[in-house]
Amino acid sequence: MFLSGGGSGHEPAHAGFVGEGMLTAAICGDIFASPPVDSVLAGIRAVTGCKGCLLIVKNYTGDRLNFGLAAEQAKSEGYKVEMVIVGDDCALSPRGIAGRRGLAGTILVHKVAGAAAAAGSNLSEVMAEAKRASEMVGTMGVALSVCTLPGQVTSDRLGPGKMELGLGIHGEPGAAVADLQPADVVVAHVLKQILSPETNYVPIERGNNVILMINGLGATPVMELMIAAGKAVPRLQLEHGLAVDRVYTGSFMTSLDMAGLSITVMKVDEAILQRLDAPTKAPAWPVSVDGKRPPAKIPVPVPQSPSLKSNEFSTRPQHLSEQGRILEVAIDAAASELMNMKDILNEWDSKVGDGDCGSTMFRGASAIVEDMNKYYPLNDVTETIKEIGSSISRVMGGTSGIIYDILFKAAYAELKSTGQGQCTVTPTEWASALQAAVAAVSKYGGASAGYRTLLDALIPGLEVLQERLNVGDDPVDAFVLSSQAAFNGAESTKHMHAQVGFSYALISL
Amino acid sequence: MFLSGGGSGHEPAHAGFVGEGMLTAAICGDIFASPPVDSVLAGIRAVTGCKGCLLIVKNYTGDRLNFGLAAEQAKSEGYKVEMVIVGDDCALSPRGIAGRRGLAGTILVHKVAGAAAAAGSNLSEVMAEAKRASEMVGTMGVALSVCTLPGQVTSDRLGPGKMELGLGIHGEPGAAVADLQPADVVVAHVLKQILSPETNYVPIERGNNVILMINGLGATPVMELMIAAGKAVPRLQLEHGLAVDRVYTGSFMTSLDMAGLSITVMKVDEAILQRLDAPTKAPAWPVSVDGKRPPAKIPVPVPQSPSLKSNEFSTRPQHLSEQGRILEVAIDAAASELMNMKDILNEWDSKVGDGDCGSTMFRGASAIVEDMNKYYPLNDVTETIKEIGSSISRVMGGTSGIIYDILFKAAYAELKSTGQGQCTVTPTEWASALQAAVAAVSKYGGASAGYRTLLDALIPGLEVLQERLNVGDDPVDAFVLSSQAAFNGAESTKHMHAQVGFSYALISL
Repeated sequence: MFLSGGGSGHEPAHAGFVGEGMLTAAICGDIFASPPVDSVLAGIRAVTGCKGCLLIVKNYTGDRLNFGLAAEQAKSEGYKVEMVIVGDDCALSPRGIAGRRGLAGTILVHKVAGAAAAAGSNLSEVMAEAKRASEMVGTMGVALSVCTLPGQVTSDRLGPGKMELGLGIHGEPGAAVADLQPADVVVAHVLKQILSPETNYVPIERGNNVILMINGLGATPVMELMIAAGKAVPRLQLEHGLAVDRVYTGSFMTSLDMAGLSITVMKVDEAILQRLDAPTKAPAWPVSVDGKRPPAKIPVPVPQSPSLKSNEFSTRPQHLSEQGRILEVAIDAAASELMNMKDILNEWDSKVGDGDCGSTMFRGASAIVEDMNKYYPLNDVTETIKEIGSSISRVMGGTSGIIYDILFKAAYAELKSTGQGQCTVTPTEWASALQAAVAAVSKYGGASAGYRTLLDALIPGLEVLQERLNVGDDPVDAFVLSSQAAFNGAESTKHMHAQVGFSYALISL
Repeated sequence: MFLSGGGSGHEPAHAGFVGEGMLTAAICGDIFASPPVDSVLAGIRAVTGCKGCLLIVKNYTGDRLNFGLAAEQAKSEGYKVEMVIVGDDCALSPRGIAGRRGLAGTILVHKVAGAAAAAGSNLSEVMAEAKRASEMVGTMGVALSVCTLPGQVTSDRLGPGKMELGLGIHGEPGAAVADLQPADVVVAHVLKQILSPETNYVPIERGNNVILMINGLGATPVMELMIAAGKAVPRLQLEHGLAVDRVYTGSFMTSLDMAGLSITVMKVDEAILQRLDAPTKAPAWPVSVDGKRPPAKIPVPVPQSPSLKSNEFSTRPQHLSEQGRILEVAIDAAASELMNMKDILNEWDSKVGDGDCGSTMFRGASAIVEDMNKYYPLNDVTETIKEIGSSISRVMGGTSGIIYDILFKAAYAELKSTGQGQCTVTPTEWASALQAAVAAVSKYGGASAGYRTLLDALIPGLEVLQERLNVGDDPVDAFVLSSQAAFNGAESTKHMHAQVGFSYALISL
């Protein structure tokens, strides 16, 4: 029952708005040219039944005349045909005789009319709703580039650092050229122009309800549309005193590859909102989000800052248990060894990377010793492992920091699940923790044996440790053999090529 | 239950895919940078219930590690968390150890997983479906421009006339640079690469069912995406022997303002199709069109060519009635007068326009006389009026051709509705026809009295004609007075400024 159309180059308009609840058909002309009369007439004949047909036409002479002649021709053939002309442009003088141009607001008129027809209204009722909607809507655009016209040299009328205000959607020059301004300034200017009480383009007053449409012109990143929407909503609310009932953001009526956007404001009441919210199968009409009103921000608690210890109740015990003392000595030894290797690690790294591996390790190892002396709960091995991860994440940063942090977090999670409530950790549990840690680094890092990473030391070390423990070796012997295997694994990487983006380093558990 | 995310700059990914039936939340990093661990962890804590949480992550080291560490941290806090890594890129070597990068195909994995979760599957079932979907999908991109990185000078590595094949979505260089090629060649190349049996990126063989996604990279006009889709479907069908079950076209995973597109092909079965078709409230997932399969072309009958007479049964009668003879004389006189005015009209027009008004009028008037002698059914005034419109539309073209055509079509429709079945037309009916004609020109042309158009002659002529007929004047006297009023109206335009885009001309009915 419904037709619209116009030149091509405005996709998804108009074909994307064909679907139950919106347009019945769209007639496409060549790029930026009205479809010829015959095309419009063919469309009218193809879809018009006994209820008649409403043509929704943007206010351009070519569209008015071609659709108009087709309408007259169709009427002379006995079809019931009506036409509504939409002119929502707020850039050009409202009193000009050619009238305001049709811009993205036309899509909202399609939606209102389509929903009215789907709800069973007759032709004159649908026409009345479309006409009323067209009188409630104002649009103004801002272009950051001139669009490419196929087969033509693109105009360089817009220099760098400039923007056009009040552009047309056919590459025609804008109403004014201005220096580029921040999004907030541009949005504020455009909204003021649309809502100006002097020009009175749209009958919107303080206290009214409106909807907002931010329309990309073809080459505008979605993020920029979102930024504009984010600036426009509070301005409409606070500066203009309007209730913003819906926000539509996307590309609805484009100008080929033009960079920029248009802003449309439409006064709404319950009747119009109901039409806008009615379901449609038109693929380019946005899916409504439940709740409809722009959602309020829902605060999400920020995790504890990594600059603090992970557990605020952690404190270094006044008296260390035997295991606590052993743990302290082991951590201290490993950290000291790493700190001693600072220069040689840097030297090795300078041959393949940026030469800071030793310094990064030094930073991590120093932090571990420092934090251990302050607050590691050394009598609780499991929680101490967790704190090591937090110390690393606090000072190391970058990919290697995350890798080592994953290593300790995964070991912690495993120790916690296997050793619930126990303060001591058995050698087998240590081996399982190492296994979980190695698996996590492999999974998230995307590496495995032979990729020339720390896994080439850890995997053979882990294998030997589990093997020796399984056959009942003394845990200390097993650990020494495991260390030897890890060392050999590290040596073997000398002849490998690096495969993934994080550097090899042996870390001693 | 579901989270995804990654760097920003890929909008609508990932926030646009949050909604019932798709993602539960999206975690956004800075432009092209993974979100930090704490943001991911905050997201997991905010949405994860007792059913657990699946992280869908594109295969980049930063995303894997930050999401990975957050997952390990969340697990150590007691949450059930799983992760699926998507690498659908078909541009880089499939055997590389860093693995294939995650591109637009990830969105399809979101959809499958989201629909599975909405259908009540548990975490491990959802993970299995997501993993399976990720193995069925291959993507490759083509860039025509390098994207702008905020705050950085845009690389000029891509010269004019060049394109990059196998781009990444973070501005990283493509796998190869090539000369620009027509859309069909580019699409054919990309599809061959994705479906290559040598590299075997995706397990797709002749006879399989697939879906196609054409994804804009940010600054690509929708029309170009449609053109690519139009080229890709027959290639998949005919060259690769595949059934194309669905086509998704739009911007799903962009690279800020990059011009270009990516093509995704996914092998599907009924189970995957059901997930893709399941309803979702995610705003950036496209609304399904009924029928689902790409629609076949529905032929729409083209109206009779305007180069032919409008009624194939029209013929000049052998014997003219009295009214027919008068009509012939009147048409002939008006046409001759217009033809005689060719040079002077051209001269006048050359002062305000392109100087072809007289020639255009001459062409129209000549065609009317010629067609009248051949086939105007002169004894039937109404049908003759219609034929005059067709003669004009056949030879005049442009805005003026349409205006005069509307004039005659509207007069015809009015005569037909008032004078049903009568061969003679009364003076009052003539006046009504003129009134309808003037109204139509005014409506579709957007002009009225005082706009310096032909209406400034026709409106006073019409008024005087109706006035005189109403008071019972002799019709011939009334017509003469009407002509005088029209002439005076035309003269009055000398002091007006032109207001609309079609030039003044007096045409005698």
